[in-house]
Amino acid sequence: MSNKIKLGFVGGGNDSLIGVLHKVASVMFDRYEIVGGVFSSNQSINKATASDLGIDLSRVYNNYEEMAKVESALSPKSKIEAVCILTPNFLHFPMAKTFLLNGFHVICEKPLSISLEEAKELKQIKDSKNLVFAVTHTYTGYPMVRQMTKMIYNGVIGDIQRVDSTYFQGWINDIIHDKEKRNSTWRLNPEISGVSSCLADIGTHAFNMLELVCGMKVNKILADLNTLYEDNPLDIDVSVLVRMENGCKGTIRSTQIATGLENNLNISVYGSKGSLSWEQENPNYLYHYTSDKPLQVLKPGHLYNTDLSLDGTKLPAGHPEGIFDAMGNIYRGVARAIRGEKNEKGEFPTIDEGVRGMDFIEKAVKSNEKGNIWLELD
Amino acid sequence: MSNKIKLGFVGGGNDSLIGVLHKVASVMFDRYEIVGGVFSSNQSINKATASDLGIDLSRVYNNYEEMAKVESALSPKSKIEAVCILTPNFLHFPMAKTFLLNGFHVICEKPLSISLEEAKELKQIKDSKNLVFAVTHTYTGYPMVRQMTKMIYNGVIGDIQRVDSTYFQGWINDIIHDKEKRNSTWRLNPEISGVSSCLADIGTHAFNMLELVCGMKVNKILADLNTLYEDNPLDIDVSVLVRMENGCKGTIRSTQIATGLENNLNISVYGSKGSLSWEQENPNYLYHYTSDKPLQVLKPGHLYNTDLSLDGTKLPAGHPEGIFDAMGNIYRGVARAIRGEKNEKGEFPTIDEGVRGMDFIEKAVKSNEKGNIWLELD
Amino acid sequence: MSNKIKLGFVGGGNDSLIGVLHKVASVMFDRYEIVGGVFSSNQSINKATASDLGIDLSRVYNNYEEMAKVESALSPKSKIEAVCILTPNFLHFPMAKTFLLNGFHVICEKPLSISLEEAKELKQIKDSKNLVFAVTHTYTGYPMVRQMTKMIYNGVIGDIQRVDSTYFQGWINDIIHDKEKRNSTWRLNPEISGVSSCLADIGTHAFNMLELVCGMKVNKILADLNTLYEDNPLDIDVSVLVRMENGCKGTIRSTQIATGLENNLNISVYGSKGSLSWEQENPNYLYHYTSDKPLQVLKPGHLYNTDLSLDGTKLPAGHPEGIFDAMGNIYRGVARAIRGEKNEKGEFPTIDEGVRGMDFIEKAVKSNEKGNIWLELD
Amino acid sequence: MSNKIKLGFVGGGNDSLIGVLHKVASVMFDRYEIVGGVFSSNQSINKATASDLGIDLSRVYNNYEEMAKVESALSPKSKIEAVCILTPNFLHFPMAKTFLLNGFHVICEKPLSISLEEAKELKQIKDSKNLVFAVTHTYTGYPMVRQMTKMIYNGVIGDIQRVDSTYFQGWINDIIHDKEKRNSTWRLNPEISGVSSCLADIGTHAFNMLELVCGMKVNKILADLNTLYEDNPLDIDVSVLVRMENGCKGTIRSTQIATGLENNLNISVYGSKGSLSWEQENPNYLYHYTSDKPLQVLKPGHLYNTDLSLDGTKLPAGHPEGIFDAMGNIYRGVARAIRGEKNEKGEFPTIDEGVRGMDFIEKAVKSNEKGNIWLELD
Repeated sequence: MSNKIKLGFVGGGNDSLIGVLHKVASVMFDRYEIVGGVFSSNQSINKATASDLGIDLSRVYNNYEEMAKVESALSPKSKIEAVCILTPNFLHFPMAKTFLLNGFHVICEKPLSISLEEAKELKQIKDSKNLVFAVTHTYTGYPMVRQMTKMIYNGVIGDIQRVDSTYFQGWINDIIHDKEKRNSTWRLNPEISGVSSCLADIGTHAFNMLELVCGMKVNKILADLNTLYEDNPLDIDVSVLVRMENGCKGTIRSTQIATGLENNLNISVYGSKGSLSWEQENPNYLYHYTSDKPLQVLKPGHLYNTDLSLDGTKLPAGHPEGIFDAMGNIYRGVARAIRGEKNEKGEFPTIDEGVRGMDFIEKAVKSNEKGNIWLELD
Repeated sequence: MSNKIKLGFVGGGNDSLIGVLHKVASVMFDRYEIVGGVFSSNQSINKATASDLGIDLSRVYNNYEEMAKVESALSPKSKIEAVCILTPNFLHFPMAKTFLLNGFHVICEKPLSISLEEAKELKQIKDSKNLVFAVTHTYTGYPMVRQMTKMIYNGVIGDIQRVDSTYFQGWINDIIHDKEKRNSTWRLNPEISGVSSCLADIGTHAFNMLELVCGMKVNKILADLNTLYEDNPLDIDVSVLVRMENGCKGTIRSTQIATGLENNLNISVYGSKGSLSWEQENPNYLYHYTSDKPLQVLKPGHLYNTDLSLDGTKLPAGHPEGIFDAMGNIYRGVARAIRGEKNEKGEFPTIDEGVRGMDFIEKAVKSNEKGNIWLELD
Repeated sequence: MSNKIKLGFVGGGNDSLIGVLHKVASVMFDRYEIVGGVFSSNQSINKATASDLGIDLSRVYNNYEEMAKVESALSPKSKIEAVCILTPNFLHFPMAKTFLLNGFHVICEKPLSISLEEAKELKQIKDSKNLVFAVTHTYTGYPMVRQMTKMIYNGVIGDIQRVDSTYFQGWINDIIHDKEKRNSTWRLNPEISGVSSCLADIGTHAFNMLELVCGMKVNKILADLNTLYEDNPLDIDVSVLVRMENGCKGTIRSTQIATGLENNLNISVYGSKGSLSWEQENPNYLYHYTSDKPLQVLKPGHLYNTDLSLDGTKLPAGHPEGIFDAMGNIYRGVARAIRGEKNEKGEFPTIDEGVRGMDFIEKAVKSNEKGNIWLELD
Repeated sequence: MSNKIKLGFVGGGNDSLIGVLHKVASVMFDRYEIVGGVFSSNQSINKATASDLGIDLSRVYNNYEEMAKVESALSPKSKIEAVCILTPNFLHFPMAKTFLLNGFHVICEKPLSISLEEAKELKQIKDSKNLVFAVTHTYTGYPMVRQMTKMIYNGVIGDIQRVDSTYFQGWINDIIHDKEKRNSTWRLNPEISGVSSCLADIGTHAFNMLELVCGMKVNKILADLNTLYEDNPLDIDVSVLVRMENGCKGTIRSTQIATGLENNLNISVYGSKGSLSWEQENPNYLYHYTSDKPLQVLKPGHLYNTDLSLDGTKLPAGHPEGIFDAMGNIYRGVARAIRGEKNEKGEFPTIDEGVRGMDFIEKAVKSNEKGNIWLELD
């Protein structure tokens, strides 16, 4: 009898880009089987996706409310245990809330919600129900991010004295300069995306990465946002000054108008004994600088890495693993948590990270509105 | 009713490094389900692997002969359709032969066999049975290898006038200098590995890559092999001069004693109009040089790529996919072939590539034995 | 009869790091001969340097006042025409003023002075005397910086919509954490360095580079400075939000506590049609990104470069030139200006850039003191 | 009274590419002054060059014979001491011979001559005269080549077990495919270039680099040469198998038809304890691989480098020096030798390297002619 976790999807149909990432990641370590869901609000896509996955059509639902109701009534042996939520931002909250209230573990795309208030409510429910809740900051699943986090935690670079986290994309450039396109893209629609485009979509990754690898909170921020056009309500370009818990200074920068750039999430942390730097587009290289020794370039799969990093590598050094593997690591961490197995902090981002992210987004927008002033995070 | 291909494994138990690659790759596109096999000659590993995969123990066999016999007697609806062979080199031939003769499609690790004669026999059987046979030269599944192949085929770099294919690893260094270790490693044992270590394990990849991307055969070779120690019978370091079908010259170099190097498979092709270069360790970059324009760096997922390349990318540009994804592409190509769907040459390496590889290995060993003379390939 | 420009030095003795850069750069194109100066306040170094240079001791002076007086009294044929000032910051003003008033052209290290007021006074004198005045922002002499500037000017990347200029070093880390060292380093001594360490030493380069390549001014800034220790009065770590002349936003970041980093001056400009990025440590690569074509990597010496860029390269492509060659280009530009030959804007940084730099330094310090507020540059 | 070495030039006129490299390099450290020469066989260029250099026209000669005769008759105080020879290959021998016989030190471009016999004769004369003779393998002057050489000498990577030296250019591609051009290029004219194009021009650099950094000789070679067209007599593409003094194997590859490539001289040496790799186009990076530690990237100017390497760096780490600086280091080493100062093996390439190079070229051509057979070097 398989001990696999029964997983349901909301979103992630065959026309969904993010869907393939979650589907592959979930099956990678034989810890889940996808047994049902609402893969699309378009019912033909909904069914076609289920069919491709080999799912019994009786477990394909018209909407998430129905799914929650029917599934929660099934026997413990057959019912969905965890739900993966891959819908646009504004749907995360009602869906996650419903599934939590019905006793399902939740794996939710970021941003967690469209307001901090919603995020806090989800956390409260989650805590009261004692369920597992993951927010898929995918990039935290890379073995060299795990390695960087652990090295900093272990004091390898000493006290942190400067930080810079960056997420630069260029995809919105061709949209923003076309009035029609910019008025019809959901990322730029406040009703679907909430108060932010760039911060919500990618700035929150940069923020999360910064707090994760530093092992410390951002205390306050001063944000400068750009919209480029007056008829565009949401930020597409962001520069943020930060003050960390230990008083150290630095920046978070994210933009969607770095024309031609793809997906440049980079994190650099400078300490009193050395510095570490990592780039998402070349995820298998971690750069370690010191004053007196040659630059060291760490790669996955070597014994000099920490256990948490090695746990995230499946093949010997030199066989490049990528973003599917990073997400696979997160899914495995979630599985271990759901099954009550030993799992380490840092194996997957929790709802706490999701709440922090919403706080960051809201405060950054407010700091900008008030003329670029310092605001403290909660 | 799922149309997934029922897949069986020989080898690939939980203690197998290569196993995880094939298991993940096979499920990536929802085209296969693993239903049975002999995952290990160690029966407790055999069963534990099956259990993790959620496989009914009735489909777990003691050996491949039993598996072939029992499975071929099952109903078409439930029987294994394709077998994945992941055992040491010398077992490839008897296993592949048995499964072919019993009507199974085969996906086999390289090298195809331990002699050219065996390889040819397999090809003869395969042809007579009209089955699909893939040899998993994994690296050919990368989108930028597909792109390079197509660009050369389309004449982008003109006539090929120089070629260099390289596969450098360092892992055997710590073994070769330790008498006990080098006398107990299966890669250096002729009874298990055949006539070659380095050529068979990685040189054959470099050779295959060269013929693939150039779209032309290597006509003749002159090989220089090194063993380092007199009590080591098999090559661990190889330099080969090549003459291509069109008369152009170049080299194939492979070594297992490039201390500290991981998995450096690189291919460079120089043409009359430009040059292309690709490296396995950074697989998402393809370098295109010309005389009069800036260096161009192609990356996966962009519309400037060919259809065959784009077919191999699941996410938008900047989300690095890796070797699991490359193997996933090969598995999907095989699935399309098995199901009789449209599939393009280059989606997966066939038994023809396997036979060519064995010819290369044998001739290279012979060229070296005879004092580094030119020998023609078949 | 040689038409070489007679050059005098103030500073740049054999114990000076910066001295070798100027000496080599000045002789590179046979446009200057060094004929005299005050190479050091230490008279034995002063004379030894002159001797190594093959300079007649009658032209070696005890101090700059004497040098200005004696040299200005010599015949036009033999007297020094231009003076190179390489002393600590606080001496730039009195020296440059004296030499200008006595009719000498000046080549001065940055920052131009220790206050904006001084800088403006120098500019006024320089203008009234119709002399050539260069401020050696060395990095502007690289051929690919010239290429980047021209490409932006030519509209290759369209309208500028985001900018980031960065200068990260780590050399002060080992000093700042040692109380004795940090209290005895001249860069951290306000009497010698003026109001700033990091801004004055390297931030001004990042600022200058930004205005140069964008061909537009920074309108206002909001700066966040760090000193790390209370007993250290001067900034060693800086983050600045900027608003460009055209309204576009971005950052200037500079730090001396990026432990282990060497000399990372980078500039990235993102436009509506494409982006350009350049790094000082790998100065012969210019990255050009667009939405729909492969990344293009431009290198020096190719005919696809602009005339201004090609003017800065002496050897065919692939023969890496470096920082001495960059400074050599600047010296040649100055020589052309002194001799009244055709020379293009951008061949060397003028006193205007020096004045702008001082404005930036003063306003950044003030913005920080006032709690990180926006201040307009002149 | 200046102690500078009086230097004369043969070749290196204003129309000469190589001239600027030697002129700048010679003045870089204030060790030479250029006082006369035959800068061009074109007398107007000859005089214009001298004029630009500020040279008295009485020291400008019509030809090298006149120069040798007149200069050797001058007083020791004023006469040229060393001659720099920058003419096409076939002129190196008669010129160098003449100057040696008249008591001048010689700095000669490579290849040393157009035959091994000539090279040996030059060496004999040089030895009998007790003069300094440098062959300008420019690339050996880079600080990281010096570092690599010393690290290998010091045993850092253990016993050498595999070597690869490569020099790939593409510049001849556009010439070779144009009948008229290829029949009129001096590099392809045996009367001017000798028996080889590619080997003589760049293969000899790769060979020299290999023997230099390994600190050991190449014992024998097997060469495969390509001409592409029947009417082209000289090699433009070369692959060579090598056997080193210690029995280790490897390759030397050089080509002029790697379309679009610039000046890719790379050297990799693999040892029993680690490996080292260096590339001319990014000369300030030295890669050190080991089995169990992260890749280390060494850069110039750090105290972890050897004295010989540090001697070759003028500025602090992060200020990239280039090929002019590499040649400057060689010129300084020659100056030290001429003045009898302490200088270390490896500061400049001597006539011994020049003789070895000619041996390599001749044997490689012969090996190819005889059907790719092994030939021993002297």
